[in-house]
Amino acid sequence: MLSVAEALQLVLSRAKPKPPVDCPVDAALAAVLAEDIASDVDSPPHDKSLVDGYAVRAADLAAGLAELEILEEVTAGAVPTQTVRRGTTTRVMTGAPIPHGADAVVMIEHSHVVESTSLGRVQIRAKQTAAGQNIMRRAASMARGQMALRAGCELRAVEMGVLAEVGRTHVSVVGRPTLSVLPTGNELVPSDQAPGAGQIRNSNGPLLVAAAQTAGAVAASLGIARDDHEQLRQLIGRGLKSDVLVISGGVSAGVLDLVPEVLAELGIEQVFHKVNLKPGKPLWFGVLPGGGLENASGASGDKLVFGLPGNPVSSLVCFELFVRPAVGVLAGRGDTSLGEVAAELAIAHVHRGDRPTFHPARLVSAEGRMLIEPLRWQGSGDLRTLVEANALACFPAGDREYRAGETIRALRLPRPW
Amino acid sequence: MLSVAEALQLVLSRAKPKPPVDCPVDAALAAVLAEDIASDVDSPPHDKSLVDGYAVRAADLAAGLAELEILEEVTAGAVPTQTVRRGTTTRVMTGAPIPHGADAVVMIEHSHVVESTSLGRVQIRAKQTAAGQNIMRRAASMARGQMALRAGCELRAVEMGVLAEVGRTHVSVVGRPTLSVLPTGNELVPSDQAPGAGQIRNSNGPLLVAAAQTAGAVAASLGIARDDHEQLRQLIGRGLKSDVLVISGGVSAGVLDLVPEVLAELGIEQVFHKVNLKPGKPLWFGVLPGGGLENASGASGDKLVFGLPGNPVSSLVCFELFVRPAVGVLAGRGDTSLGEVAAELAIAHVHRGDRPTFHPARLVSAEGRMLIEPLRWQGSGDLRTLVEANALACFPAGDREYRAGETIRALRLPRPW
Repeated sequence: MLSVAEALQLVLSRAKPKPPVDCPVDAALAAVLAEDIASDVDSPPHDKSLVDGYAVRAADLAAGLAELEILEEVTAGAVPTQTVRRGTTTRVMTGAPIPHGADAVVMIEHSHVVESTSLGRVQIRAKQTAAGQNIMRRAASMARGQMALRAGCELRAVEMGVLAEVGRTHVSVVGRPTLSVLPTGNELVPSDQAPGAGQIRNSNGPLLVAAAQTAGAVAASLGIARDDHEQLRQLIGRGLKSDVLVISGGVSAGVLDLVPEVLAELGIEQVFHKVNLKPGKPLWFGVLPGGGLENASGASGDKLVFGLPGNPVSSLVCFELFVRPAVGVLAGRGDTSLGEVAAELAIAHVHRGDRPTFHPARLVSAEGRMLIEPLRWQGSGDLRTLVEANALACFPAGDREYRAGETIRALRLPRPW
Repeated sequence: MLSVAEALQLVLSRAKPKPPVDCPVDAALAAVLAEDIASDVDSPPHDKSLVDGYAVRAADLAAGLAELEILEEVTAGAVPTQTVRRGTTTRVMTGAPIPHGADAVVMIEHSHVVESTSLGRVQIRAKQTAAGQNIMRRAASMARGQMALRAGCELRAVEMGVLAEVGRTHVSVVGRPTLSVLPTGNELVPSDQAPGAGQIRNSNGPLLVAAAQTAGAVAASLGIARDDHEQLRQLIGRGLKSDVLVISGGVSAGVLDLVPEVLAELGIEQVFHKVNLKPGKPLWFGVLPGGGLENASGASGDKLVFGLPGNPVSSLVCFELFVRPAVGVLAGRGDTSLGEVAAELAIAHVHRGDRPTFHPARLVSAEGRMLIEPLRWQGSGDLRTLVEANALACFPAGDREYRAGETIRALRLPRPW
């Protein structure tokens, strides 16, 4: 049986970034840039003052004290009209252009206006005034034509600011992946209904849609599919309009596990079925090569199809280990697998089982150490216990008693955003 | 002058969680629950099979081998009609209810149908079949009436699944904070225009709106305010309809720094002005007590008003240190300050300055160690350099030469989500 790492490699090898789309900048936050962005301006556009103060010739303050004639006052947004010569100064506000002739700015706190008629004269007390002081040189941050942002960078707040600075209203970004969720099973009723005998509410649909949204996909549920060949075929066909189709249930070895059969009929090539992990062994993965059905963006990437086990915890673990990284690649972010940390067991733990196990756990940081506590858990149907979990504790295959204090690997479960 | 920690305490002391609002569950992802949620069902609703297999009396397999008569087959969603007695078994699929009389399930892999007429007989080979094996007991995950989710929990994918499991279509959540951004300054032109002499494009507006969105607020820009008393008054008044108003520029000591004056006229009480940090010293913070102006949600919390310095890097640093944690409290998440880590300097670094400094830096994890490299940075107007940064390196006040390998504190800058 495939290992988790082997299975992940197979998934990632079939995932490709989506083609670029043109996007208004105010909708581009969190997208990945698909073009290099050059600056169309020098930033700053002029030598500018970093403080409110007096633009001076540093030489005039060689003695640490000077009385200077104020030529004019320049605020941000205005332009100086006079040249600063020996014995004169211009009052400048933060961001204002530095007048010709001046080579330093003395902060207003070190000045004292001595004659307040008209602009008057100012006494300045400032030792060691060096040329360049409190001045940011034209183009020091970015020169016109220089690369401001590179294709592949994720657009955070800073990048949104830089895009505005260089005047972009639209940008080319990697398209956002679309993902459809299809829960299957005769036992499922919609969550707004009271379940009858033998029935349960559909929790996997909302669970997986939410997980996909936190992974950066545009996600929607296709509704519940009965264990019925024709209906499955119809709903799966609809789901193949998305970049990723996530089916839950219907992939174990039971009499009604019809999903692999229907997928084959629809031309989806199985890449693997079953992975050596717990929970989640029955995981199925396949692709529809070249996009197959219609695709609004004209993309030709493979459609990715995941068949997750029907138990909600198995479903979520498989999503986090395999679907999330694939969505990351489609979105241009690369492999967005859960972050791994080493942590000390807070309590002793007995692990039994012949498969590598991902056990719901609580990870806390205490005095610089990472501690992890595996939660008491009723198995893969027990979603309730996962509410307490913020990590998955990783135990290798094989029975073993772990002592408190032993170091194990853990994967951090994501916060919504 | 206030320290960063003192200023943050003053901000947090004026921030209160927003009142609860009713929210459809499919719009509640990432919100904070404002009510306790009890389960209206037992989960699972019946003793259920965890595997595809045969429901047996464990006693029948005491010898490790038995041939049993198959009574019926029960799939998930169906209900058993017969009691399993000595010498008989019922085929059950994953999730199916366990029939009366059976106390264990043997996996289908250990069975072999010996007579295929009608349902026939099955030979089972399974040593050490214990009572309870492969069965999840009714209500093992959650009993009817038991608390499923507690007020205060953040709704991740798992919680969305639990809400569906207990049949909720609406939930009470902490209201989402609203935040308005008001960039000020005569030098600013909108980002879709070419700046003239002395002008720059408004980058702070898009920067701060994006930062607020990543902090969980519903954020919008009010447009650019000139350094004009009447216009400032009008736009600030409009901004006070939001829970948080973030003004950038206009708060230093310059002649056109009108913001504190206009805020006072509008009844906003100054809590502090100036904080001992770099960049960001001119930070202004105040509140409009009791909500003041109209408030769609009927809330009576204080309106929070931040006056950030106009330089984009100062603006962003002040946002991350003070506005983000406040938005977290309003959203019911508590203090969402940036995560702090200890890291080794990757290069030697000379720090000069009489204020604690937050220096843009690159944090990388290498072989279990955290390394941090302060970036070459042109000062608070240099937004471009922040593109390379994923952290702020923290240097205490005072001139000092740091050696490569010294450990310093760093704050991680957030990813979009």
